[in-house]
Amino acid sequence: MASQVNPPRGMRDFLPAEKARRERVLGVIRSVYSAHGFDEIETPVMEESDRLHSGLGGDNEKLGFAVLKRGLKADDLTEAADPLDLADLGLRFDLTVPLARFYATHRSELPAVFRSIQIASVWRAERPQKGRYRQFIQADIDIIGEAGPLAEIELMTATAATVDALGLTGWSIRVNDRRLLVGMLEALGFDAKDHDSALITIDKLDKIGQDGVVAELREKGLPGDALERFFRRPQTMELLSFGERLIAKGLPPGADAAVIAHLAAIGLAVDAGQGSPVVEFDPFLVRGMGYYTGTIFEISHPLSTSALGGGGRYDGMIGRFLGTDVPAAGFSIGFERIVDLVESTETTDADAVALIYDVDIDLPALMRLKAGLVAEGKRVRLERAPRNLKPLLAQLAASGFTRVANVTAQGTHGTGDLRFRALDQER
Amino acid sequence: MASQVNPPRGMRDFLPAEKARRERVLGVIRSVYSAHGFDEIETPVMEESDRLHSGLGGDNEKLGFAVLKRGLKADDLTEAADPLDLADLGLRFDLTVPLARFYATHRSELPAVFRSIQIASVWRAERPQKGRYRQFIQADIDIIGEAGPLAEIELMTATAATVDALGLTGWSIRVNDRRLLVGMLEALGFDAKDHDSALITIDKLDKIGQDGVVAELREKGLPGDALERFFRRPQTMELLSFGERLIAKGLPPGADAAVIAHLAAIGLAVDAGQGSPVVEFDPFLVRGMGYYTGTIFEISHPLSTSALGGGGRYDGMIGRFLGTDVPAAGFSIGFERIVDLVESTETTDADAVALIYDVDIDLPALMRLKAGLVAEGKRVRLERAPRNLKPLLAQLAASGFTRVANVTAQGTHGTGDLRFRALDQER
Repeated sequence: MASQVNPPRGMRDFLPAEKARRERVLGVIRSVYSAHGFDEIETPVMEESDRLHSGLGGDNEKLGFAVLKRGLKADDLTEAADPLDLADLGLRFDLTVPLARFYATHRSELPAVFRSIQIASVWRAERPQKGRYRQFIQADIDIIGEAGPLAEIELMTATAATVDALGLTGWSIRVNDRRLLVGMLEALGFDAKDHDSALITIDKLDKIGQDGVVAELREKGLPGDALERFFRRPQTMELLSFGERLIAKGLPPGADAAVIAHLAAIGLAVDAGQGSPVVEFDPFLVRGMGYYTGTIFEISHPLSTSALGGGGRYDGMIGRFLGTDVPAAGFSIGFERIVDLVESTETTDADAVALIYDVDIDLPALMRLKAGLVAEGKRVRLERAPRNLKPLLAQLAASGFTRVANVTAQGTHGTGDLRFRALDQER
Repeated sequence: MASQVNPPRGMRDFLPAEKARRERVLGVIRSVYSAHGFDEIETPVMEESDRLHSGLGGDNEKLGFAVLKRGLKADDLTEAADPLDLADLGLRFDLTVPLARFYATHRSELPAVFRSIQIASVWRAERPQKGRYRQFIQADIDIIGEAGPLAEIELMTATAATVDALGLTGWSIRVNDRRLLVGMLEALGFDAKDHDSALITIDKLDKIGQDGVVAELREKGLPGDALERFFRRPQTMELLSFGERLIAKGLPPGADAAVIAHLAAIGLAVDAGQGSPVVEFDPFLVRGMGYYTGTIFEISHPLSTSALGGGGRYDGMIGRFLGTDVPAAGFSIGFERIVDLVESTETTDADAVALIYDVDIDLPALMRLKAGLVAEGKRVRLERAPRNLKPLLAQLAASGFTRVANVTAQGTHGTGDLRFRALDQER
């Protein structure tokens, strides 16, 4: 019986060691984003069904968990045409729909350029598989109200600093612009109606390679040959500035000069803030979400096959519930992927002390001893003396309690400043 | 239109200042509980419906938000007898049912005495009213596997230290024992079948007073006169130890000596650890939840009409999903009440700097300046220079940015270490 008691399908419990590790990583993310001028907000885990299904969520809308209306009667069931008619709320499947709703609710209380942090769980009823969960944490930063390249620059700079602070090395940020993709497809002779289909294929470049992309486009009856010629363009490498590297990669056919200038401004300033070249132009970066309207970007790490995070500019979206257009861009970190990459630096805390007490100990004296040690800044755990000490010591060490003292009616017997302390037994 | 965009009924958004205040309070609670040897765990927000409705949740079970099964067809609706048949999951309405499920899942990986921290949101579909929300945070500590008084002692000591660390003063912990209440009712001549009804009335003592309680018991046809005589007992005050104070209050009729000894051991040791008398015996403390089996306690504060937190021993419950009995006790802090009481110490951060930049600024130079200040430990916000500076300065000050510098093509112009810094414009 006991063996069948599990958390719901695709969802996880976190035991103390793993929970502590996750909180450490979250603490780093929070503090770096805050240092870069972003402000944390929070929204409820549920939003109204209508908002969750307003088209802002793309395919994720289909993966939402729906919450049953309260007080339903048996009659309501027979009258409902669709199961979703019985739901008035749903759990959020991303942090962007709630942000658009939050911004519409509170716009008058927020600064003209609002830099938000959202670090919170989202829920998707996906088929569970390795590394994919039905409840997981997203860490998003967004800048609302800034149309210029400084939005993208600050998002990338803050995310780069966070990944650095987590001790990850060798990562890079790839950038592109939706408008360059569209311009390229037009220049290469793809019909407008085929753009979505072509982008789905180009998005597979990392998996199936250039030859695979060209072949799949041909199978679809699309002009793969034209793209192949651009794949085969000459590229010069080892130049200095982001702008020079961008040009050396070969501008995509049909590239708009203003878009290139916007990208160059971003790359130049992010590299400058970082003090080293970290931004790379990738004319084949697609990003799945259809709501992006301009710059798109991803952060990649050599040890992870999928991106550590990504984002872009989505000017049409935040203003949706407000009825006006508001410029906006965001960068979302894949927390679950990051937390797996971060070294498990299980810090043995020198200030963690276990007090192993005899069963006949005077409890007030024991509690005075504990209070004194806590007041000195120690973390203190009490353990009743077992018949066999060994398993207890092993388990304590595994929990980070490497300093141990025996407490008997006479006093403590341990090492260092615990070597001997008489118990204060007066009442 | 925009004016109608709100979070779901009874649920709240948190803007930056309030979110920061809540996170500060949560940080204090986490660190004090950890110092006292407790370990934080996390469970999913959803549990299976059957577990949520297994009787462990009392009246709260009726307030649960139910989650619709995925992939339902129209036919499923007509076949369902009860709306809840369409739900397989629900949002947790407390942290105790998930803890019982967690313990059953992971018992073999946990220490013999397990001290858990759970700080997380719960959801109840209550009628929204002032100070009562449909999503709110609970902060629970529990000790599983300890049958002796040390469980209650450590719970109370850690909670007292937390409330102290939050700067609250004048609070006290009231204790009683379910078995004393039952013994008293028996000794006073209440039939066993009337105990629940009598306890509901006695639980109103703080609101309706002793006369009100006696009158309501009489109305119910219960022996109110017998209780009245105990209300009128002589009490001696101003004694030293908890045990003496306990006896001076007048032992309730029918009091079991072993239970009194257990209570005395608790009060004596908690007072000793705290270094001052904070525990008071209250023979009329009831606590609503029916699952308590022994000691019960509440923490009261003069500025709050309801308790800041409460808990007790519930030996029958944690083992429910395991099929065995496990001793357990817990203390739950009412986070939402506490956070309202804690002084809003809006710390003006001396290290928060706003850089107001000219529209034609060199962005790489600006980002190098920002990176340098962040590296010095400052929190940096960028703001484009507006036509009218006054509203921006006021809004920045309200967000804690009291240090401001202008950034022009020539360099920064501010105060202190920002007085003048030339911009590094090389690329």
